[in-house]
Amino acid sequence: MADLRSKFMEVYSLLKSELLDDPAFEFTDASRQWVERMLDYNVPGGKLNRGLSVIDSYKLLKEGQELTEDEIFLACALGWCIEWLQAYFLVLDDIMDNSYTRRGQPCWFRLDKVGLIAVNDGVLLRNHIPRVLKKHFREKPYYVDLIDLFNEVEFQTASGQMIDLITTIEGEKDLSKYSLPIHRRIVQYKTAYYSFYLPVACALLISGANLDNHIEVKNVLVEMGTYFQVQDDYLDCFGDPEKIGKIGTDIEDFKCSWLVVKALELCNEEQKKALFENYGKLDPANVSEVKALYKELDLQGVFFDYEKKMYEKLSASIEAHPSKAVQALLKSFLGKIYKRQK
Amino acid sequence: MADLRSKFMEVYSLLKSELLDDPAFEFTDASRQWVERMLDYNVPGGKLNRGLSVIDSYKLLKEGQELTEDEIFLACALGWCIEWLQAYFLVLDDIMDNSYTRRGQPCWFRLDKVGLIAVNDGVLLRNHIPRVLKKHFREKPYYVDLIDLFNEVEFQTASGQMIDLITTIEGEKDLSKYSLPIHRRIVQYKTAYYSFYLPVACALLISGANLDNHIEVKNVLVEMGTYFQVQDDYLDCFGDPEKIGKIGTDIEDFKCSWLVVKALELCNEEQKKALFENYGKLDPANVSEVKALYKELDLQGVFFDYEKKMYEKLSASIEAHPSKAVQALLKSFLGKIYKRQK
Repeated sequence: MADLRSKFMEVYSLLKSELLDDPAFEFTDASRQWVERMLDYNVPGGKLNRGLSVIDSYKLLKEGQELTEDEIFLACALGWCIEWLQAYFLVLDDIMDNSYTRRGQPCWFRLDKVGLIAVNDGVLLRNHIPRVLKKHFREKPYYVDLIDLFNEVEFQTASGQMIDLITTIEGEKDLSKYSLPIHRRIVQYKTAYYSFYLPVACALLISGANLDNHIEVKNVLVEMGTYFQVQDDYLDCFGDPEKIGKIGTDIEDFKCSWLVVKALELCNEEQKKALFENYGKLDPANVSEVKALYKELDLQGVFFDYEKKMYEKLSASIEAHPSKAVQALLKSFLGKIYKRQK
Repeated sequence: MADLRSKFMEVYSLLKSELLDDPAFEFTDASRQWVERMLDYNVPGGKLNRGLSVIDSYKLLKEGQELTEDEIFLACALGWCIEWLQAYFLVLDDIMDNSYTRRGQPCWFRLDKVGLIAVNDGVLLRNHIPRVLKKHFREKPYYVDLIDLFNEVEFQTASGQMIDLITTIEGEKDLSKYSLPIHRRIVQYKTAYYSFYLPVACALLISGANLDNHIEVKNVLVEMGTYFQVQDDYLDCFGDPEKIGKIGTDIEDFKCSWLVVKALELCNEEQKKALFENYGKLDPANVSEVKALYKELDLQGVFFDYEKKMYEKLSASIEAHPSKAVQALLKSFLGKIYKRQK
């Protein structure tokens, strides 16, 4: 495992050096240095879960057969494409959300001399993906499918982000816009496709599979990704800050969280009034009111119920899959997130 | 011609309605309305030169043969993909440059309720291109080449934009960074590829050509695009504001213009000092000093010389091309820009 991560990092260095030497552009020294610094700052500093899961998935699909050096490289390269995609979204999201920190350091656009140049850096990150794909996959029979896949998932992510943004427009804080169907759509499109479906779809493609034959795998993974984000919303309020590594601020930030959406569904008129009055305010007194209301409505119990039902439903879908290898893959994903505390 | 434009607009309406009904995403009413308004505001309001030139080029390549309805549609669809690409760049450039107006109306991000959501709208515009390509070209033998083409040109444009941005970082106004090679790189990558090469490359692909066999056509068009941008720089200072439709501010904005780069090349030490002292300042007195210096150096004469040599060089390259149809196409491009006043 430690070995896999260091192999993965080696591939990062190689891809980076290829991008800094791309014959399609004449770099100046200053621009080459700029891109190198921008990549090192934004791409490899996360948990790398999405990227590494391409390799894990590929291994499971090969059912214990040893991967060749070349196969490992290709899986790593696709893993990095997903990490590049994520970096692109995060650099731009931080600008739109006016955030301060990301992965324990200042957001890229907050740095001196960067500022809104970060918008173009986001665009460059996105443009690196087809460069990597073209260099290493152009001759593969699944090249077109790979490109179509990345394009479709990026489109879905940007569309989910749009609903999130226009539902939460500043100065128009209106809780009545929030509902379970809206929450599901935001989460499914903004997070689930690229975080859960994309890594597995990449692994399927390099295994020679046709994605059209794996709609059920997609459905299960998208549902799992939705469940993952509901956990995130739950932990933001009820998790241990020590474990999740941050103090949640969804209530202050007027986020369309699963908790507020559930609260709206379950509350009576009086409670609803209290929610409207206190949600989305910075004052700790308002936040406490909201948390008290969540406890009154027993949202922790409601969440445990949801989690249990989700686990049963997903397990049943997985058991129904004809391939043992695919079952093992999906179970491994589910096992990693079920009852997670961080 | 009026007819071609109305046909082109018809295709815009069709593509828009397809995008608003894309099965890869579950639109809410609010998000569908948002995208429609965003498209109408940002995509069709320009001169449409780039988009229309795909159709013109295609006709010339077919040497007078009547185009079928289907062929016209495909050329229009690719023309719109270029207009979408341009809209994406402009929406994001205006944010980075902190601009106020674009095409006679406020920049999109300046509108109430838009603001930095415009970053994601830019991303959506970009994502619409592969949606259109997939829907209408997926079964064509040149589908992969089309996607590779758009990806490569977008990468080049973003890379050119990067050099422009980091050469002109605010608070670090340093004329000594400006030179003819830097100017050439910015212009070639940021403008020439997508404005001149891309429309013709699209027309070549739908005509069944292999782009690898047309490197010379690419070279001529990229050189023409560079010449076009030099004209732009010249007209910003010496053009008639009535004709070009705006009052140039390149001197105030500390732009890496062909004029300042030429001035740096031709000036003596004393003139250089004056240029360093006066370039990039808002005060009209400073601007006048720079303009006086340009006259002293006879930059108008230098430009006319450049224009004449460029015309001769491009004409010679065109004459050397083996295909009469390609010659006609390239001549038509050159004829449209030679000695232009606007």
